[in-house]
Amino acid sequence: MARIVMKFGGTSVADTDRIRRVAGIVQRQQAAGHEVAVVVSAMAGETDRLVNFCREANPLYDPSEYDVVVSSGEQVTAGLLALTLHAMGCKARSWLGWQLPFRTDDAHSKARIDQIGTDAVLASMAAGEIAVIPGFQGISEENRVATLGRGGSDTSAVAVAAAVKADRCDIYTDVDGVYTTDPRIVSRARKLGRVTYEEMLELASVGSKVLQTRSVSLAMKEGVRVQVLSSFVDENSPSADDLPGTLIVSDAELGTGELQGSDMESQLITGIAADKNEAKITLTRLADKPGAVAAVFEPLAEANINVDMIIQNVAKDKGETDVTFTVPQSDLPRAIAMLEGKQEEIGFYRLISDDRVAKISVVGVGMRSHAGVAATMFSTLAERAINVLAISTSEIKVSVLINADETELAVRVLHTAYGLDGADQG
Amino acid sequence: MARIVMKFGGTSVADTDRIRRVAGIVQRQQAAGHEVAVVVSAMAGETDRLVNFCREANPLYDPSEYDVVVSSGEQVTAGLLALTLHAMGCKARSWLGWQLPFRTDDAHSKARIDQIGTDAVLASMAAGEIAVIPGFQGISEENRVATLGRGGSDTSAVAVAAAVKADRCDIYTDVDGVYTTDPRIVSRARKLGRVTYEEMLELASVGSKVLQTRSVSLAMKEGVRVQVLSSFVDENSPSADDLPGTLIVSDAELGTGELQGSDMESQLITGIAADKNEAKITLTRLADKPGAVAAVFEPLAEANINVDMIIQNVAKDKGETDVTFTVPQSDLPRAIAMLEGKQEEIGFYRLISDDRVAKISVVGVGMRSHAGVAATMFSTLAERAINVLAISTSEIKVSVLINADETELAVRVLHTAYGLDGADQG
Repeated sequence: MARIVMKFGGTSVADTDRIRRVAGIVQRQQAAGHEVAVVVSAMAGETDRLVNFCREANPLYDPSEYDVVVSSGEQVTAGLLALTLHAMGCKARSWLGWQLPFRTDDAHSKARIDQIGTDAVLASMAAGEIAVIPGFQGISEENRVATLGRGGSDTSAVAVAAAVKADRCDIYTDVDGVYTTDPRIVSRARKLGRVTYEEMLELASVGSKVLQTRSVSLAMKEGVRVQVLSSFVDENSPSADDLPGTLIVSDAELGTGELQGSDMESQLITGIAADKNEAKITLTRLADKPGAVAAVFEPLAEANINVDMIIQNVAKDKGETDVTFTVPQSDLPRAIAMLEGKQEEIGFYRLISDDRVAKISVVGVGMRSHAGVAATMFSTLAERAINVLAISTSEIKVSVLINADETELAVRVLHTAYGLDGADQG
Repeated sequence: MARIVMKFGGTSVADTDRIRRVAGIVQRQQAAGHEVAVVVSAMAGETDRLVNFCREANPLYDPSEYDVVVSSGEQVTAGLLALTLHAMGCKARSWLGWQLPFRTDDAHSKARIDQIGTDAVLASMAAGEIAVIPGFQGISEENRVATLGRGGSDTSAVAVAAAVKADRCDIYTDVDGVYTTDPRIVSRARKLGRVTYEEMLELASVGSKVLQTRSVSLAMKEGVRVQVLSSFVDENSPSADDLPGTLIVSDAELGTGELQGSDMESQLITGIAADKNEAKITLTRLADKPGAVAAVFEPLAEANINVDMIIQNVAKDKGETDVTFTVPQSDLPRAIAMLEGKQEEIGFYRLISDDRVAKISVVGVGMRSHAGVAATMFSTLAERAINVLAISTSEIKVSVLINADETELAVRVLHTAYGLDGADQG
């Protein structure tokens, strides 16, 4: 017998028919002898509807009342899933944020989790009741409703799994696992049996939208085994135990030899991600002296604009330099306005911006102990005459910035170059 | 300075525009120097939507999970009204059932109110914050969400008014007060300045749908001054203090001479109500012996079928009798099935049913000390050849059962006969 936390997103619970399908998946886990807690999102579209009401009521909404309104979506799904499980003959009950309690700090609309009460819910689960928990919601130090931010239900599920010491946290989504790259771009992309937390973090932060980054960080910190799998499977197909999606595990667990052969072969590079949400800014003829670069980046940091890749080209003669860096596309207008407002103070000649860029990243824990990953990347791109505009690296990732038009080509040739191609799914 | 509880129903908060209008009404009360708590219903149509989800999920739904789902509608309105008040520069915060706490028993979906915590909300109101409270919802002895039954927000408002010792409970609806009869039937119907709790109870139970009966009983028991008035007034019109609707008060208060002249004139009869939701059953040739009538009514009582008017015609010769009585139309099929199943046991010859009947009631506290009310009723109806099928009376009411076709005519001629006609509004 295991203790399992299952999480279903908005498209999986979009209407009462889909909730019935979800209830069937949950029922099979309980029938297999497991203790089960289920974390649910709001029905697809519901949170948007509620957020719009808040905007209509007050464009500058107070986040604590916003939380009262938007948290209701998950409450509805939790009650409906419990009712549906009853109809199937299962014992089930809902546990709202204030009932567990699911304690957070007072940062309404983006609250951080403090502690989750588990005595009552564990007793209920031990008595054979399926616990149905609305994601996204908790209660603050002042006993008010607090939400974790959009997409927070993944984080709720991992937090509940950590609190009840679950053997596994199964995140059901509309894809059936984590792939070596986006299957819509590369038809020979392969589903990964396992990835490490670190790899998943890099993939999540560079465009693979399977899991909220924050939920992966929390799983890593708390050592929660997370599995990503699809809720849109045939009702007669094998259960999650027999047909796994992608398991997200620690480095140590990845190295225990539990891996299937197919994963062993691709251990050097796990996947390739593309992110079109960056924009590039170049400041020309900046004075090449101490403090000049700080004068650029300090005001951006103060305005909470995240700078990612940075390159600096030193001109040989005049003591001047060009600085190029990337910011999130959504912050580009704000960044331009701020920098142009400080043109004299910073001391640059021109600001050139470009939002038609893409960041391509190759990710893999194997990189730590293998050389040549970056070299392969550059030579592969050079062969196709794809120009590299900027480069950044981490322990388990190499990223390059290229023109957005070349995204699909770059992902495809790199996928082949690193030996990731599987059977054609197209 | 007074302390006022205001309640707004579903049509008054149907969308964010109407919520803005409600916020304006609330703001004016606070600006007049009052401490204000507001009780709100779900947006019109929202509770039906949620109830339908529950039925789809599980036709035999568990009421405790039903309550989790349907209570969310009022929660949304409460948050939105607080946000809207903020946008107008008012201080406001929502108080959910579990936050007050609004304690009820464990009878989910039709819970009864135990006690309402007021320390925190009174402190907040004293500090100038408008308290926004979702109607319909509380928490049970087991700390689960409990609802009071459809239309329960009126009762929530009266209970909150009693708990915070409010000077008045203003119930805003889509009509502007209680009328001498339905203005759609009688264009010369007059709005009443005051009615007593007992009159309002009789009017509510015989078809005047302005207030939930239960809220009137609670107001009477707790001595809460209730005012019924319209939320659909022009924004520039006088406030509730200047343009009252109908005040519901005790007998004693009605007799203190505070009454306006127009009400003095009509004190004998307050109003006339028509109810088309009754059905008539006649059992013919029942044995006229002790216990025979009990054999009819006991099984109906056990099945929770409410019998209202009863008449018994004793046949002179055969020791047999006909019994006629009324039941709610919605219970008619069940009542017929039950009685026909016990035909031999009860011992009657035929069962004749008729759902094309209406109950017309004249209501007034003056009746206690005046004779002739019933006589006027019968002679007025006889003049128009309206046949009386059954009669029942209470201390402050005389009701007759007539053919449904004659409802409008009967109400009109009685309204004139009792001197209730005002200026023509048609």
